[in-house]
Amino acid sequence: LSHDLRGIPLQEVGVRGLELPLLIQGSGAVLREVPAIWQASVSLAAELRGTHMSRFVEVLSKYGRSELRNLDFSDLLIELRRKLQCSRAEIRLSFSHFIEKQAPVSRVSSPAAVKLQITAFSSEEDSDAKHSLFLEIPASNLCPCSKAISDQGAHNQRVYLRLSANLLDAASWSFSRLDALIERIEESASCRVFPFLKRSDEKFVTEQQFSNAKFVEDIIRDAVLRLRKEELICGFCFEVEALESIHAHNAWARHSEDFEPGFRT
Amino acid sequence: LSHDLRGIPLQEVGVRGLELPLLIQGSGAVLREVPAIWQASVSLAAELRGTHMSRFVEVLSKYGRSELRNLDFSDLLIELRRKLQCSRAEIRLSFSHFIEKQAPVSRVSSPAAVKLQITAFSSEEDSDAKHSLFLEIPASNLCPCSKAISDQGAHNQRVYLRLSANLLDAASWSFSRLDALIERIEESASCRVFPFLKRSDEKFVTEQQFSNAKFVEDIIRDAVLRLRKEELICGFCFEVEALESIHAHNAWARHSEDFEPGFRT
Amino acid sequence: LSHDLRGIPLQEVGVRGLELPLLIQGSGAVLREVPAIWQASVSLAAELRGTHMSRFVEVLSKYGRSELRNLDFSDLLIELRRKLQCSRAEIRLSFSHFIEKQAPVSRVSSPAAVKLQITAFSSEEDSDAKHSLFLEIPASNLCPCSKAISDQGAHNQRVYLRLSANLLDAASWSFSRLDALIERIEESASCRVFPFLKRSDEKFVTEQQFSNAKFVEDIIRDAVLRLRKEELICGFCFEVEALESIHAHNAWARHSEDFEPGFRT
Amino acid sequence: LSHDLRGIPLQEVGVRGLELPLLIQGSGAVLREVPAIWQASVSLAAELRGTHMSRFVEVLSKYGRSELRNLDFSDLLIELRRKLQCSRAEIRLSFSHFIEKQAPVSRVSSPAAVKLQITAFSSEEDSDAKHSLFLEIPASNLCPCSKAISDQGAHNQRVYLRLSANLLDAASWSFSRLDALIERIEESASCRVFPFLKRSDEKFVTEQQFSNAKFVEDIIRDAVLRLRKEELICGFCFEVEALESIHAHNAWARHSEDFEPGFRT
Repeated sequence: LSHDLRGIPLQEVGVRGLELPLLIQGSGAVLREVPAIWQASVSLAAELRGTHMSRFVEVLSKYGRSELRNLDFSDLLIELRRKLQCSRAEIRLSFSHFIEKQAPVSRVSSPAAVKLQITAFSSEEDSDAKHSLFLEIPASNLCPCSKAISDQGAHNQRVYLRLSANLLDAASWSFSRLDALIERIEESASCRVFPFLKRSDEKFVTEQQFSNAKFVEDIIRDAVLRLRKEELICGFCFEVEALESIHAHNAWARHSEDFEPGFRT
Repeated sequence: LSHDLRGIPLQEVGVRGLELPLLIQGSGAVLREVPAIWQASVSLAAELRGTHMSRFVEVLSKYGRSELRNLDFSDLLIELRRKLQCSRAEIRLSFSHFIEKQAPVSRVSSPAAVKLQITAFSSEEDSDAKHSLFLEIPASNLCPCSKAISDQGAHNQRVYLRLSANLLDAASWSFSRLDALIERIEESASCRVFPFLKRSDEKFVTEQQFSNAKFVEDIIRDAVLRLRKEELICGFCFEVEALESIHAHNAWARHSEDFEPGFRT
Repeated sequence: LSHDLRGIPLQEVGVRGLELPLLIQGSGAVLREVPAIWQASVSLAAELRGTHMSRFVEVLSKYGRSELRNLDFSDLLIELRRKLQCSRAEIRLSFSHFIEKQAPVSRVSSPAAVKLQITAFSSEEDSDAKHSLFLEIPASNLCPCSKAISDQGAHNQRVYLRLSANLLDAASWSFSRLDALIERIEESASCRVFPFLKRSDEKFVTEQQFSNAKFVEDIIRDAVLRLRKEELICGFCFEVEALESIHAHNAWARHSEDFEPGFRT
Repeated sequence: LSHDLRGIPLQEVGVRGLELPLLIQGSGAVLREVPAIWQASVSLAAELRGTHMSRFVEVLSKYGRSELRNLDFSDLLIELRRKLQCSRAEIRLSFSHFIEKQAPVSRVSSPAAVKLQITAFSSEEDSDAKHSLFLEIPASNLCPCSKAISDQGAHNQRVYLRLSANLLDAASWSFSRLDALIERIEESASCRVFPFLKRSDEKFVTEQQFSNAKFVEDIIRDAVLRLRKEELICGFCFEVEALESIHAHNAWARHSEDFEPGFRT
């Protein structure tokens, strides 16, 4: 049952769609227990027929009981490689991360969800774990063309800003550093979006959208200028998708710089 | 294997997520073969342990080879009840329906997809098949409050208009009648959306949005006034969901009139 | 802006897809902050043009900071009706609920996610809040027909058990009571599923599946017998969907008893 | 409005989620009009602020009226590059493709859906369009470990086989060639799945599953041996995901050979 003669080493074998609780230290004092969806894999040597699927669950569910303080998953990868006796291990986990957003005029604060995905791998040849993150952040844009040609108004819409980035020094990526990155990215859009807006806030947001008209192309370029300055990011892919209010389809743009395909999320 | 002693008749037993081609006669001359997703069920008497799952596939795949000219599925229900020897049968099928949309100024025409779902059932006690439809139609709205309080501009967004309606005389519901209903519903929004818009069209659409500001509540009420006049609709549930451009969540409203729960989609 | 002359009272107006943190007291002593997706609505009188959308976010985000000890949302509904000055309010929230599952032989414990949705509403006419829950629980079944006709083996697959139930005395529905209900429902399937299974556990599970062959119809009926005995449930709709391993479509059955359509999830 | 000074050329700007009808010549003589979901993009030079989004819709909706006889989209790419005046264009379209499946014993034929996605791009530097396809094909597997350790039975489940492949000579990829590829890939699983199975077919399928036990690792390796022999494929990524009947999560494996990241779907 355990030997294989086909001579084909496999790059990834593992589990997917495994939902487990994850303890994270948020920006406040409360410990958060968020449901995370895991994918995990190991390489399989040509002469072995199968991996030990149950060990993934053992390692990952034990890991979820420790407290996550930053985006460094090196220890988990070492544990996976040891338990699964393989040359390479990779994990990917997805969860909702909450940031506090202050309404622009009333200053009332409310929590807003950002989709976060972390991918990491390490191998015998290169035991330094490589980390990348994927963020999906809602914002809004207002169309410069529509504004220019129309007597009044301009179409605007919710956009999703999606960043895939290779991280340097994952242990330095605390959640507060992550929150600061999210805020810098949001500022590339025509306007940020907020869970809670009083009337005075809604006036402010509407007028900021209007005075800050941007194509998806503009958002990409302004974000690129910001992302190039991030010290702990070495290569990224940035995408903007706008849920056009005048169409049933979306406008979309993407730009990559030094982004390694292996990291792709 | 076939008898059951638990004394519990089951209301619905069948298949779901079955994708089969469906031949429909569109508004043009070309015969369309669209992929339809089917759910189908029959009632099961208390003394029978199980139904014949394979007969659903037999009946539905044969049915897909005939040409659908209207929304009447009475014959299919009779066939299901005969083949499955049951007192009640119900089907639900979902597919993309294309309508032609003319851009408002340039008059260039392009096809636009509308999500269509049809539910129908009949029984021994009432062999007249009951039909209902569910439509999801994209459109747009512009917020009256944002317009009123802001010096310039107003937030606007894509909205989804969702109609569930009990149909009278399903055989009279041709696809051209359906297309006319879709157009009347769209007119309740601030503006229709279009696949193709030239610059002159975009100016028109932006200005119409702005001059025709509507809350989701307004869209519901204007649609209700229209739907009450539909002769071949006897009860409906109408819902509007707006992908707010200033929030990451949606605004939403719903109104039902004489809508039978059994029809609920 | 605030008056309406169309004479149409609206049944539901509100927000949807609002993701907020929720503090819950789990089966252990740990306080969990889980992400919940909210829908909330209020009725709108005919003479009012619109509701106050921002107040929903205000009430719900404040509510998420208090600690949820059971499934009773009466206080939240009172607060919504007071703040929104309406005759009826309804909320629906969805989140992942983790239960601990012990592997059947090795007794190793690991957390398993169950999808949980709670709906509640109250009104001026009937200020007692009505609560219902929706649960989606994974399990497995093995086909009795396939077993009977085949020389060896039998097809089996993951199934999803879905319960919608009207609750009595929501304050008595602690999370430990919920966990007990989930376990009783799981026992209707051919076998429970587990995140972690050692070799000895996998042997047990395989053999239990095989000796406990059940159609989706059987699972429904066995669950119905159990659900009729639940003291704090007054009406339910139970559905089973099997991801057939021999087809690309699913087998499916549904049964309702005294389930009020208004509760429908 | 049209000049840009930020000095950043963009790799992809365009539309996404555009649903349009597509005329295809199926394996029979019938011309099918199927709904396709399009993504299309062009590169944008550093000095241009934005692309012409409406031209995508113009080109794609016109293209959908011509008849697709094979997987070659070179002409469409030339037309996009000409109309959008760009150095590089890329398209991706997804639709359901039906193949006819004969039940293994009764020989009854019924249509089965396969998810198909085609990606193609061309540029000034290399005007030969590069094509790749992505296929998702349902099948089943039976676990060799579960079979070996259990006195009776073995867990089995639906699996999804996913192929991403770089194509040579896209014009030679007729739909009948595609159908033949799909059938060869399916044979790597423990057993094919079928829409319609009579009792005699179900016995055959159950017994074939049982006698042909395969891990996801085995399916990958058997598929790799087959894929290496395909003359018109030059590099591929093959993935198998099994909806484990004993877990709520999936088992999964992936293997790539000479697969260019740029093609990645």
